[in-house]
Amino acid sequence: MANPHRVVIVGGGFGGLTAAQALRRAPVDVTLVDRRNVHLFQPLLYQVATGGLSPGDIVSPLRWVLRRQRNTRVWLSDVTGIDPARRTVLFSDGTDLTYDTLVVATGVGNHYFGHGEWASRAPSLKTIEDAIEIRRRVLLAFEAAEREPDPRARAAWLTFVVVGGGPTGVELAGALSELARDTLRHDFRSIDPAGSRILLVEGVDRVLPTYPPSLSRKCYRSLERLGVTVRTGTFVTEITDVDVALKTASNRERIATRTVLWAAGVKATSLGAALAEKTDTKLDKAGRVIVEPDLSIPGHPDVFVIGDLAYVEQDGAPLPGVAPVAMQQGRYVAKMIKHRLAGKPYRPFHYNDRGQLATIGRARAVADLKGIRFSGYPAWLLWLFVHLMFLVEFQNRVLVLIQWAWHYFTRNRGARIITEWRAASDGDTTRPVHP
Amino acid sequence: MANPHRVVIVGGGFGGLTAAQALRRAPVDVTLVDRRNVHLFQPLLYQVATGGLSPGDIVSPLRWVLRRQRNTRVWLSDVTGIDPARRTVLFSDGTDLTYDTLVVATGVGNHYFGHGEWASRAPSLKTIEDAIEIRRRVLLAFEAAEREPDPRARAAWLTFVVVGGGPTGVELAGALSELARDTLRHDFRSIDPAGSRILLVEGVDRVLPTYPPSLSRKCYRSLERLGVTVRTGTFVTEITDVDVALKTASNRERIATRTVLWAAGVKATSLGAALAEKTDTKLDKAGRVIVEPDLSIPGHPDVFVIGDLAYVEQDGAPLPGVAPVAMQQGRYVAKMIKHRLAGKPYRPFHYNDRGQLATIGRARAVADLKGIRFSGYPAWLLWLFVHLMFLVEFQNRVLVLIQWAWHYFTRNRGARIITEWRAASDGDTTRPVHP
Repeated sequence: MANPHRVVIVGGGFGGLTAAQALRRAPVDVTLVDRRNVHLFQPLLYQVATGGLSPGDIVSPLRWVLRRQRNTRVWLSDVTGIDPARRTVLFSDGTDLTYDTLVVATGVGNHYFGHGEWASRAPSLKTIEDAIEIRRRVLLAFEAAEREPDPRARAAWLTFVVVGGGPTGVELAGALSELARDTLRHDFRSIDPAGSRILLVEGVDRVLPTYPPSLSRKCYRSLERLGVTVRTGTFVTEITDVDVALKTASNRERIATRTVLWAAGVKATSLGAALAEKTDTKLDKAGRVIVEPDLSIPGHPDVFVIGDLAYVEQDGAPLPGVAPVAMQQGRYVAKMIKHRLAGKPYRPFHYNDRGQLATIGRARAVADLKGIRFSGYPAWLLWLFVHLMFLVEFQNRVLVLIQWAWHYFTRNRGARIITEWRAASDGDTTRPVHP
Repeated sequence: MANPHRVVIVGGGFGGLTAAQALRRAPVDVTLVDRRNVHLFQPLLYQVATGGLSPGDIVSPLRWVLRRQRNTRVWLSDVTGIDPARRTVLFSDGTDLTYDTLVVATGVGNHYFGHGEWASRAPSLKTIEDAIEIRRRVLLAFEAAEREPDPRARAAWLTFVVVGGGPTGVELAGALSELARDTLRHDFRSIDPAGSRILLVEGVDRVLPTYPPSLSRKCYRSLERLGVTVRTGTFVTEITDVDVALKTASNRERIATRTVLWAAGVKATSLGAALAEKTDTKLDKAGRVIVEPDLSIPGHPDVFVIGDLAYVEQDGAPLPGVAPVAMQQGRYVAKMIKHRLAGKPYRPFHYNDRGQLATIGRARAVADLKGIRFSGYPAWLLWLFVHLMFLVEFQNRVLVLIQWAWHYFTRNRGARIITEWRAASDGDTTRPVHP
């Protein structure tokens, strides 16, 4: 073929990167577009936020992952729009790129339920910068407490409120508790970090609401044993710099705190809405694109939406926004493209649910594998195994642990992530002079 | 003793931290003050700048290093002044701290030889943020080259100029060359990173000017073999966003480049000048404090200045600003304090020079150990050994490599560094909302 079929994939997360990898041997030209130069292993982001891992440990440079895949190039650019009529992706620098098939996988961002002003007071956990910012705030809170002579002000510095009882909130609260009670135990002289108060606030009546109730109860008990105070059926009504207002069905209360972390809601990235407007596609109320059974958008079989940005129902319920769904959709779309090029039909997408896993600190987790439910150490070992396998798959690292040790001595510079720092744009070169 | 002798140490670098550690069993109260919560292992900072190591790999939280040392507390604060008459250290938040003995070890910053405007165009390599900024610029230069259709503009993106041929400049140029020729080899489709041009510019007639000439020649050959173009006897006269102007004794030239890195000069931190003004102490022309043979300042035996901030002559030449000097001075001052408390005299400071080492990329280095000079692989093995021993000493890690692997599974959260991001001050909570 003189002009191979051009596949453009927007987004290098679990969905987009899997799609690109699954097209490795296909007779197509693949361009993977992302604003960032790395794939982020989001399930371990809470570890960066609590100082357990370095950002470099949970990212893989996209170019490195795809370096041997000669039919694929990586394009570091900010997509501002899509023109389905001209089959073109538009970039912020005015350039564009033409596709024959487009895969949109830009995922979701955070959602403050109409309280955009909370974003600066309660950072969320979606990007590496988020994690670094949370780490900074958490560590500075202990430092401020150490210097604070007033006991009440000190208690506010040592109170941490996590909003949202899903997997991210649970993992974050558990890790915070371990940071305070374990890692920092001997570090201070005026305060006892173990006396920190960690609150997990969830609006519905149980943590991990998407899990079976029996695992929610196990998770609740694990959190309480770790010293986390769990408040279910509780909503946040206000966040200020010095406290947070909580409301239950029967009660209102203000908690003095200097650190509020947000793990409560997600909203589709804006590219979904931009695409929907041009193609008359419908969105769900979280802004996700309602796709056809083959993950394409209505009337545009050459445009697929996958991952967290796509709204897909199966067995009467929407699929959850988790990595396994995105990865299976990425593989599905790659197969669909190959079948079409070969002129063959292909079945609709079906998610093969292997189960749910959440970890609650060291050696504690809950698992639900197609109805087989367990918790504690065995679940944690499974969590560890699954995450290591994930890392292996994406980083092509057979011996991840050994590699982590030897990454200085090997030729893989795993840490080459471009962190946004002070100036977000490439062109801005202003920075302070260090004295 | 009801009121133990209060030692305040300002600066948690090699000098200050060593002094604090050496006072472990002394009958004194130690306060180590730093703006940052971590000790930075500066000799490996160039590895962070070139993506080889994560920031978390080369820092140790000061509190963690000193957590078992019950007579010592860590104070995270910005020192703005010293009042020797009232024996008080002043902080930016208006608070202060009284000392019986003061040790100032705030080191040096970068010096642009009267061209402060170059700081934003040619970042230097002193802090973690510097390293992250250099990494960002270097990696974005390759990305920009990949997208750039014009060959001349592309060549400018692929030209890197390192100013300064001392150990930092040599290490940085060597690592940049390896990054381009080795790590990124398969990563791009439109450009060949191996075609990058890396220039090392040094004003005097040889690289590593503080080393014996034979090792400078060896270093020069190693650099050229790595593909680095070395320009000695060459000065930078102008740095713009698109090029750099060079001048030799006989020639002027402009090199089109988008990335200039500064490793050329250092200047004492401002606390030295503030101290000198109040105590009538003299400074050398780089702003370093000229101290007495016992490292105290004239007329103030209770104030010591150590490390890069101190100017000390030995055998007719000033001591170099390297970690071994600072560490020996830290240990010396601790002993001096203990001797004084016991009412015993103590000898003047004498630097025991064990030699110089510089590395030039993987498996290449030069060493000068008291006149025994060697280079290549043996020198690199020595470099590796010395640096691992250093890391062990500061991090109390017996098995550093194993720890690097297992730091996720152990309770040491080695990565808990507070990175300045967007807002430098603790109180500023403004940050952009991620979409």
